Amino acid sequence: MEIRPFRDADWPAVWRMLHATIAAGDTYSFAPDSSEAEIHRIWVETPSATFVATDAGVVLGTYFIKPNQPGLGSHVCNCGYVVEPQARGRGVAAALCEHSQDQARALGFRAMQFNFVVASNEGAVRLWQRLGFAVVGRLPGAFRHQRLGYVYALVMFKQLVATDVVYHPAP
Amino acid sequence: MEIRPFRDADWPAVWRMLHATIAAGDTYSFAPDSSEAEIHRIWVETPSATFVATDAGVVLGTYFIKPNQPGLGSHVCNCGYVVEPQARGRGVAAALCEHSQDQARALGFRAMQFNFVVASNEGAVRLWQRLGFAVVGRLPGAFRHQRLGYVYALVMFKQLVATDVVYHPAP
Repeated sequence: MEIRPFRDADWPAVWRMLHATIAAGDTYSFAPDSSEAEIHRIWVETPSATFVATDAGVVLGTYFIKPNQPGLGSHVCNCGYVVEPQARGRGVAAALCEHSQDQARALGFRAMQFNFVVASNEGAVRLWQRLGFAVVGRLPGAFRHQRLGYVYALVMFKQLVATDVVYHPAP
Repeated sequence: MEIRPFRDADWPAVWRMLHATIAAGDTYSFAPDSSEAEIHRIWVETPSATFVATDAGVVLGTYFIKPNQPGLGSHVCNCGYVVEPQARGRGVAAALCEHSQDQARALGFRAMQFNFVVASNEGAVRLWQRLGFAVVGRLPGAFRHQRLGYVYALVMFKQLVATDVVYHPAP
């Protein structure tokens, strides 16, 4: 498995896996009927960078990386990952996440935040925890799961560069 | 004090207070040198609605309301509030927040989320708590305060409509 920058020629394969994931309505908040143009903008045009994992020329997964906030919050990045359904269980998501952490440091980010991990996506929650992310927030009913109904979304966070935090939350 | 929909003629007064707040670099993550056009887009063009609080024709404060996530998270809204520096301590922020909660219900939102409340902005944190918001997330060092350095940002959340949450977070 190789992880390399996204190229335009990858888009048909990338869109197929993004569309399958989004249409299922159980992991990403994007509307299940999102258009190809909208998702291309979010996954390829807006981010700082987009990568794909390939094996023998076949795209197995993809991720983007971008600042999670503008200006005074831009030292924390955000990533989104999707793995080809048939390639699950082969460590693709873990490899993409490890790669994204290296990329994040190379791009000057100090931490990585996931804003909206669907709590019922237990495999993802466990994987991010194994890779060093902590659950730092719990949003009650913030995700309208297409089969289950309202479920929690989790905020997960990992420090990538030692950072001296001078002010802790009072509450 | 009256709270009413934003009109184009309000923009010069609204921009003055937004610019003063953003340039201080202690409460909002927008880059302190954000352009007027960028902030107009964020405060007026992108949101579902924008309001102003006025007294005898003078704009004392403003807020926007918008979905916090697309598609399957669009039942939770997000708001941003700014009060004219000279009008602080007169209950403007509380009045805006109460108004925004009514608007949120009227627009069909079930909950309201603040993604990035700067922990050192203690007055705001206490006010949102008094108005029924809970701290549901703590982001270590996520805000680069212009004077203090890296401080916590808090995620705050309030249910506006009783919602049956079917799946709680495992971790």
